[in-house]
Amino acid sequence: MIYLDYAAATPIDEKVLVAMTPYFREQFFNPSASYLPARQVRADLDQARHSIAQIIGARPAEIVFTAGATESINLALAGMNGAILTTAIEHPAVLETAKSRGGKVLPVDKKGRIDLNNLEKELTDNVEIVSIGYANNEIGTVQPLKEIAAIISKVKEDRRERSVKTPLLFHSDASQAAGILDLNVARLGIDLLTLNAGKFYGPKQVGLLFVRAGVELKPLIRGGGQEMGLRSGTENVAGAIGLAKALEIAEKHRGSEVKRSQTLRDDLEKFLADEFPEIKINGDKKHRLPNLTNFFLPGLDGERAVFALDERGVMVATGSACAANKGTRSHVLTAIGLDEDLADGSLRISLGRPTTTDEIEEVKKILMGVLHEQRKFS
Amino acid sequence: MIYLDYAAATPIDEKVLVAMTPYFREQFFNPSASYLPARQVRADLDQARHSIAQIIGARPAEIVFTAGATESINLALAGMNGAILTTAIEHPAVLETAKSRGGKVLPVDKKGRIDLNNLEKELTDNVEIVSIGYANNEIGTVQPLKEIAAIISKVKEDRRERSVKTPLLFHSDASQAAGILDLNVARLGIDLLTLNAGKFYGPKQVGLLFVRAGVELKPLIRGGGQEMGLRSGTENVAGAIGLAKALEIAEKHRGSEVKRSQTLRDDLEKFLADEFPEIKINGDKKHRLPNLTNFFLPGLDGERAVFALDERGVMVATGSACAANKGTRSHVLTAIGLDEDLADGSLRISLGRPTTTDEIEEVKKILMGVLHEQRKFS
Repeated sequence: MIYLDYAAATPIDEKVLVAMTPYFREQFFNPSASYLPARQVRADLDQARHSIAQIIGARPAEIVFTAGATESINLALAGMNGAILTTAIEHPAVLETAKSRGGKVLPVDKKGRIDLNNLEKELTDNVEIVSIGYANNEIGTVQPLKEIAAIISKVKEDRRERSVKTPLLFHSDASQAAGILDLNVARLGIDLLTLNAGKFYGPKQVGLLFVRAGVELKPLIRGGGQEMGLRSGTENVAGAIGLAKALEIAEKHRGSEVKRSQTLRDDLEKFLADEFPEIKINGDKKHRLPNLTNFFLPGLDGERAVFALDERGVMVATGSACAANKGTRSHVLTAIGLDEDLADGSLRISLGRPTTTDEIEEVKKILMGVLHEQRKFS
Repeated sequence: MIYLDYAAATPIDEKVLVAMTPYFREQFFNPSASYLPARQVRADLDQARHSIAQIIGARPAEIVFTAGATESINLALAGMNGAILTTAIEHPAVLETAKSRGGKVLPVDKKGRIDLNNLEKELTDNVEIVSIGYANNEIGTVQPLKEIAAIISKVKEDRRERSVKTPLLFHSDASQAAGILDLNVARLGIDLLTLNAGKFYGPKQVGLLFVRAGVELKPLIRGGGQEMGLRSGTENVAGAIGLAKALEIAEKHRGSEVKRSQTLRDDLEKFLADEFPEIKINGDKKHRLPNLTNFFLPGLDGERAVFALDERGVMVATGSACAANKGTRSHVLTAIGLDEDLADGSLRISLGRPTTTDEIEEVKKILMGVLHEQRKFS
């Protein structure tokens, strides 16, 4: 069995599970209780917050633990009074929340990048938040967050001069970026950042929202007032400890893993291009996640190919798992201008830390067989 | 160390952790992915839903997994258009959500029970949902859910006859009831039920909302459309499997545990009453959780007593952990008419499955010493 769908889910790192386990068992205490063992659990939770803050260049009080990235995104966006400006290739968590609140969706170019001039033009005075994903989960296109932040900064300055009172925030879903791209919130110049432990070898439905000091959000989930009042409910201590450990490991291996996975991915792409000269890479070859390839092969039925590969023990995807489950065509491939045939003939292969050279060699052989066979078939 | 604060948090049952672990490791797949191993994970998640449904007398499609009870409560209440009717002793998750939406709060009597006649009177045509906890987390008072359901049913019938269009739903937070009280939603006659795995030896921040077929709720967290569109985000499969296992175990031992814990609790209360004749049990002696005692001792400072007991290795509480953390006086004790001195002089002791006769014998000695000493002190 060869798993090449790390963009959809990652297995937990054993060190992460080892770090979490005591908080299920002997350190199960409610961190809000008064006795010493519970206060120790609270201290450990704070330590996790501290360690995460240090990695992303934030302060501990700016880290709000959430039950996953989707909740983090909803928390960032749902409390806005003004308009939400986002792009056509965002995750459904962004698009659905924006839609439910009358957001505005910007187009992207054929490589999946946003047009900075267009962004500036669309930053009208009613816009309160810009939400643009760091790296796309289907095609891997990386957006120029720093340049976007600079434009937002300019617009804010202009608003101040004209005494326009609407605040302007910059949110980014960095779920696919952890362990690969720079997460330093100060360098990136963003106000709100979403992370998802389930995408970097941590537990599922554990995430966070970085909330820059001074940014005022409305809670989505009210109650006991945990997480600085922004996310009530007894804390998932094991999950938070797991997220911290997973991020620490991801950051430690980031440099080497980027190189290693890019070498393997490029090697696989080269093999495919040699074997199928008509293949076309979807996305931006220059600004792209190093561990992911999304390609179109004329005459291929992506879904059939996924099943044929599955039968041979290789797990890949046509696009995001949510879309696969609903049987809908990828909104990302549509947004970058692929017509039905092209979108339906595309595959996403994403590599992870456990991916080996041997696996890639094995996958080449299997892919060659399956892709030839599937095209003949169609 | 003797832990007697099971109402605040429970350690995970080893069998639950064993059931969960594969879903962190080898079965980590995104349940929405297309390949066979992911579809197997989806099937296991559905099996967990099925098993829970069977235990509470519901259909699988009526079980929505949520990240904890607080989220479950918010999901039940936040989407309402009409008024929320609740009681003064509910959990902050209910009271804060009700407050943010102009809810109406009913008083309770000195034992913590609601007045059914008053409830019926307050069920005016603008009320869309009644939210009343099954068993109170601080004093253990159990509410007559069936009788409440009968009144609600009568009011609904009356609304139908008068062509009043406002729907009327009955929600109950049963977080403290699992493993102790009957959870059959059909017998109870309720529309929405909240459960919390972290209170019955399952993982924290894993819960569910039973949503009777036909009840329409608005999602709180939007995105990929998981959980029948009511809770988006990649599923916490390990958590859901853990909840199902924990509920199965809790239900299996329910009968014997109720007897066992009640015997121990009553024995402890008798000892305290013999030792301190002026002691007063807070709550309803007849309609009360069998594993919990909340008592007032004249001259005691509850918080100091908690710390003194902690120093001797005994973990108890003055009330809920959330309140303890914020240093606020218990709103529950205030609602049942205790003045400052009485509320501040109260302690909550809650027993669990691991509690032994030996522990209770040991605690008697320690309590005797600490309570005498603390009263002398004050």
